Amino acid sequence: MTNGILNGPGAGLLLSILRNGQARTRAELVQLTGLSRSTVSQRIDALLIRRLILPAEDAAPSGGRPATAFLFNRRANVALAADLGVTHARLAVTDLGGEILADRNADLSIDRGPESTLGWVLDTFRELLAVSGHTLHDVCGAGIGLPGPVDHESGQAINPPVMPGWDRFPVRDWMSARIGVPVLVDNDVNIMALGEHWAMRPGVDHLMFVKVGTGIGCGIIAGGQLHRGDRGAAGDIGHIRVPTMDQMQCRCGNIGCLEAVAGGGALAARLRDLGLETADTRDVVRLVKEGNTKAVHLVRQSGREIGGVLASVVSFFNPAAVVIGGDLAEAGDHLLAGVREMVYGRSLPLATQRLSIRASELGDRAGVIGAAVTVIEHFLAPEVVDQIIAV
Amino acid sequence: MTNGILNGPGAGLLLSILRNGQARTRAELVQLTGLSRSTVSQRIDALLIRRLILPAEDAAPSGGRPATAFLFNRRANVALAADLGVTHARLAVTDLGGEILADRNADLSIDRGPESTLGWVLDTFRELLAVSGHTLHDVCGAGIGLPGPVDHESGQAINPPVMPGWDRFPVRDWMSARIGVPVLVDNDVNIMALGEHWAMRPGVDHLMFVKVGTGIGCGIIAGGQLHRGDRGAAGDIGHIRVPTMDQMQCRCGNIGCLEAVAGGGALAARLRDLGLETADTRDVVRLVKEGNTKAVHLVRQSGREIGGVLASVVSFFNPAAVVIGGDLAEAGDHLLAGVREMVYGRSLPLATQRLSIRASELGDRAGVIGAAVTVIEHFLAPEVVDQIIAV
Repeated sequence: MTNGILNGPGAGLLLSILRNGQARTRAELVQLTGLSRSTVSQRIDALLIRRLILPAEDAAPSGGRPATAFLFNRRANVALAADLGVTHARLAVTDLGGEILADRNADLSIDRGPESTLGWVLDTFRELLAVSGHTLHDVCGAGIGLPGPVDHESGQAINPPVMPGWDRFPVRDWMSARIGVPVLVDNDVNIMALGEHWAMRPGVDHLMFVKVGTGIGCGIIAGGQLHRGDRGAAGDIGHIRVPTMDQMQCRCGNIGCLEAVAGGGALAARLRDLGLETADTRDVVRLVKEGNTKAVHLVRQSGREIGGVLASVVSFFNPAAVVIGGDLAEAGDHLLAGVREMVYGRSLPLATQRLSIRASELGDRAGVIGAAVTVIEHFLAPEVVDQIIAV
Repeated sequence: MTNGILNGPGAGLLLSILRNGQARTRAELVQLTGLSRSTVSQRIDALLIRRLILPAEDAAPSGGRPATAFLFNRRANVALAADLGVTHARLAVTDLGGEILADRNADLSIDRGPESTLGWVLDTFRELLAVSGHTLHDVCGAGIGLPGPVDHESGQAINPPVMPGWDRFPVRDWMSARIGVPVLVDNDVNIMALGEHWAMRPGVDHLMFVKVGTGIGCGIIAGGQLHRGDRGAAGDIGHIRVPTMDQMQCRCGNIGCLEAVAGGGALAARLRDLGLETADTRDVVRLVKEGNTKAVHLVRQSGREIGGVLASVVSFFNPAAVVIGGDLAEAGDHLLAGVREMVYGRSLPLATQRLSIRASELGDRAGVIGAAVTVIEHFLAPEVVDQIIAV
C-alpha cells in the first residue's frame, strides 16, 4: 500500500464512475474527482492490471501512446448464485453484468438439512463453473437466498419455520470456508426484489416484490436500496392478520394470518377438502391452467385477500410498482386481477395515481439474478475495490 | 468562480466534514479528501470569510500564524420555521443547530385561506427576527409545514381536505417572492418525523412518527432519510380501512377509515352523542385529564384501533421506533397503552424484538423544529454551500 492510493477517492470510485457511464476518459475523471492527473493514471493502471477495466476500443492505444478512454470489464470475474426454495433450487454462474453464463434447475428438499443441501450446492457450483469455462479463481463471491428469515450480518437463518435443522446454522461461514470467497446470505424475497429492481426497473425508487407461493412475503426497495428494517424482518406480510370468517391456524402458531388464508398451501388444503387431488401450490396452478372453476375462484379470492393487505401497505409506503411473483403467480392473471381489484379500490387515489401492479418480468429467475446482484454490488463497492487494488 | 473551486470536492464537503466532527484540522482535511494543502486552505478561507466556520478556540491563531483547527459556526445564519395546523400555529427562528432563538404560539384558523394566513406568518417572522436580534439578511431559508398533502417539489398543497382555498396555491413561490430566500414546504407529519429524528433519535435509522389529532397521519424515516414515496403520499395511514361495526363516513368520502373511527374528531362526536360538551380533540383531552371514564375508555379504544393498523405496518416496515405525537397524544398514557397492546400482541416477534413505542419527546415542538431542520439541511448540503461560496 502507498499513501497515494489511500489519500482521497480511490480506484473504487473511479471504477464506479466508469461503470455508470459518468466519465470515460482520463480527462473526465480528473475533472469529476479533483484528483491530479498522475493520481488518476496510477489508479487507472491498477484497474487495468486487475482487468476490471479495459481500454475502450474506439480509443485503443496506437503507436505506443497510452489509452485515453476506458470501459468496465464485466467479464473480469464471475459470481455464483443460488436461490433455494422449500422444494426447488435454481443455481447460476453470472458475469459482473448479471448475465447468466450457466445455470441449473433442480428439485431439492430444503429439509435434507444444511450440510447435505449446501454440499449439493457446492458440487453444482463446481459443475457450472466448469461448464462456463471458469475456475474458483475467477469467482468474486457467492450469493445464497433462503426461504425464511435470515440474519444478513451473520449469514444465518433465524427460526425458519419451514427449514428443519437450519436454525442458526452458519451458512455463510460454512460455504466461505469451502470456496474461499465472500458469501452473502439473504432471504429469498429480498433477493427477488433486488433482482427485479436491478434488471428490470432500475429507475424505480420505491418497489415492492410480493412472492406468493406456499408462504407469502415481500421484498422492499426504498429509495433505490433494499429495506431490511431494524431486525431484518421488514416485508413479512404473510403473518399480518386479516379479517376473515374461517379462523385458520397458521404454521407460525397464530390465527388468521394472510398466509393461512391466501397462501398456496391453504388453497391446496381447501381444494383437497373439495375432493380434488392437490398436494401443493403447483397442483393448484395446474388445476387453474386446466380451467378448474373451483381453483380459479379460490386463486382470485386469494388475490383479493392479499390485495386487502397490500392496500394498507400501499397507502403507507406509496411505491411506484408492486411486482407479483412466486409459484402462485404462475396461475396467470387471476391472482393479479384480485390484487388489483382491492388495491385500486381501497388505497388512496394519490397513492395509486401512477402505481403499476404487474407480474414479475424475471419470473422464476428473479431470485437467482438477485443473488448474483448482491454479490456483484458487494464486490464492486468502491471501498472493496480499493482494498483489492491496494493489496 | 474559479476552476480551482469547481474541480473535485468543494468547500461544501469540507464544511460537512467539519460539521459532523470527522476532522478538525487542515492536515486531517487534506488526509480525508485527497485535496492538496493549498486547495484545502483556499476553501477554508472562503468558509471563514462567509463565517460558516470559526477558528477553534483552543487552536486560535497567535503571533500571526493562521489557525489550524476549525469549528462549524451554528450562529452564521438563522432559519425561519412555521408549523401550521388546522386551528393553531407555531413559528420560530432557530440557529443552524436547530436551537430555538425566539418562537410564538397562536390560535390561527387555516380556513382564513392562504394569503391571509401566510401574510400573518410573514409579519410574525419579522417580529421574531427583531426579537432575536436578527434581520432578513441573516436568514438562510424558511420551512413551512401544512396540515394536508403537499407536493414537496412545487411547494403547493394538493387537494387538502381541511384547507379550503389552499388547493394548488403556490405557497413556496408566494413566500419566497416576499422574503427572498429559499422556502421549503412539506406535510406537517413529515416535518414532525424529521424534527424528532434529528433532535432526539439521530441514531435510529427506521422510525415512524404517528400524529393523532383530528386526523391521523404518519411520517416515515427509512434508512435515516424521510421517505415520501412515489407521489409524496407515503404515511397516509388515516384512510386505511379498519374492520369495524359502525360504518362511519370519513371526511375523505370513504367508509371505515381509521381516522373516522379513531381520530380526535370522531371521539369528540361520539362523546357529544353521549351528552358531553366536546367540540374538538382538545375537549376530549380535557375530559381525559379530568378523569372522565367515558373519554378515557374511548381514547384507549382509539389507541387499539390505531395499534391494529400499526401492527400490520410494523410487520411490513420493521422500524426501531414508533413515536406517537399530535393533540390526542397529550391525553397521557391511555392512547399509548392501546397502541402498545395491539402492536406487541399482533406484530411478529422479530419485528417487535427491539421496537420502542413512545410518546414524542419534542411534543408540540416537533413540527417547528422539523421545519427548521428541513431548511438547515438544505442550506448546508455540500452542493448548495459550493454555490454560495463560489458566487
